[in-house]
Amino acid sequence: MYRVITIGREFGSGGREIGARLAGELGYAYYDKEIIAAIADRSQLAEEYVNQVVENQIHSYYPITIAASFSASPEDSVYSVNRSIFAAQAEIMEELAGKSDCVIVGRCADHILASHKPFRVYVYADMAHKLARCRERGDSEGLSDKELEKRIRSIDKARAQYYRFYTGETHDDRMTYDLGINTSQIAIPDAVAAIAALVRAQK
Amino acid sequence: MYRVITIGREFGSGGREIGARLAGELGYAYYDKEIIAAIADRSQLAEEYVNQVVENQIHSYYPITIAASFSASPEDSVYSVNRSIFAAQAEIMEELAGKSDCVIVGRCADHILASHKPFRVYVYADMAHKLARCRERGDSEGLSDKELEKRIRSIDKARAQYYRFYTGETHDDRMTYDLGINTSQIAIPDAVAAIAALVRAQK
Repeated sequence: MYRVITIGREFGSGGREIGARLAGELGYAYYDKEIIAAIADRSQLAEEYVNQVVENQIHSYYPITIAASFSASPEDSVYSVNRSIFAAQAEIMEELAGKSDCVIVGRCADHILASHKPFRVYVYADMAHKLARCRERGDSEGLSDKELEKRIRSIDKARAQYYRFYTGETHDDRMTYDLGINTSQIAIPDAVAAIAALVRAQK
Repeated sequence: MYRVITIGREFGSGGREIGARLAGELGYAYYDKEIIAAIADRSQLAEEYVNQVVENQIHSYYPITIAASFSASPEDSVYSVNRSIFAAQAEIMEELAGKSDCVIVGRCADHILASHKPFRVYVYADMAHKLARCRERGDSEGLSDKELEKRIRSIDKARAQYYRFYTGETHDDRMTYDLGINTSQIAIPDAVAAIAALVRAQK
């Protein structure tokens, strides 16, 4: 069985960066937007729409582009489209995990790939550090600290709801992960080295 | 400033063992029962009584041995004895942290020594692994699994209450620690190596 590392994370905590660097360090495949692209390809849905669903923004506004294979009108069809995207996503993740060692960020991968006994990491940080990281990487686009904080909380809330909706579990419950890393104090390269060492030790 | 590592833990998760081994690995001082002994020495309280207070069992039964310097009768004196033991404990921890690099297990050390910017670890595990570890180290004394589970939950609850009472915080809130280690999947020596590497990287 190939080794799977899953990374849950708070927005602005550096989880995605840890995932990408870790994959590089270990020579594993790295999946994130690639998964979405694969789903979009398979389900004939527009990638933009899939992205909205996966980011759980589908309830706040209606997608502009929906491919012909799905109905675009009734409320409950949004629900069933969500469900089928989640199912397609799960199927693709299973395929990827059966193909090579990999790192998967987000997407309820820890839950979906439970049978692969993934090494499950959760990356988090205090608000001050999340704000600073967002500023650093330039996704704050002229927002005030207060507005940016609101945005961070809103994205984290959406992720939590997404996780709970599809898994019935709480995504930041420590029992759902093997290692929790607070990047307020731990630098990204050190976190990557620590995770890599733990994963190598488990082989 | 000397380096301080604090370890919070669930009963049966191996936190104490991680602390002791980590201190050995890093060449740091290790404090646990030694702190209690030092407090007992300083406050002239019987060590057994101090131990009961620190383990938060003081509300369930009355100590047999109380040294002459404390009154043994009114209810509120138990409260004030608890408070003065906590204060003495905090004072001693400050002294120890000012003397050398050290690892301190439990005792709200993460909170008390916050000004030392400790590296804060929280060690936990699922119930099955905690039961197995208790059996292994022989602190189950003929208890059934159900009784042992009850005992584990009760000790963890007492620790949580102790932490909340003295710090106003929740001891297993991930924001109160830098690294969370689930020993259900991570072996003790691997955990020790990972923490040691992170601490060395931060120097």
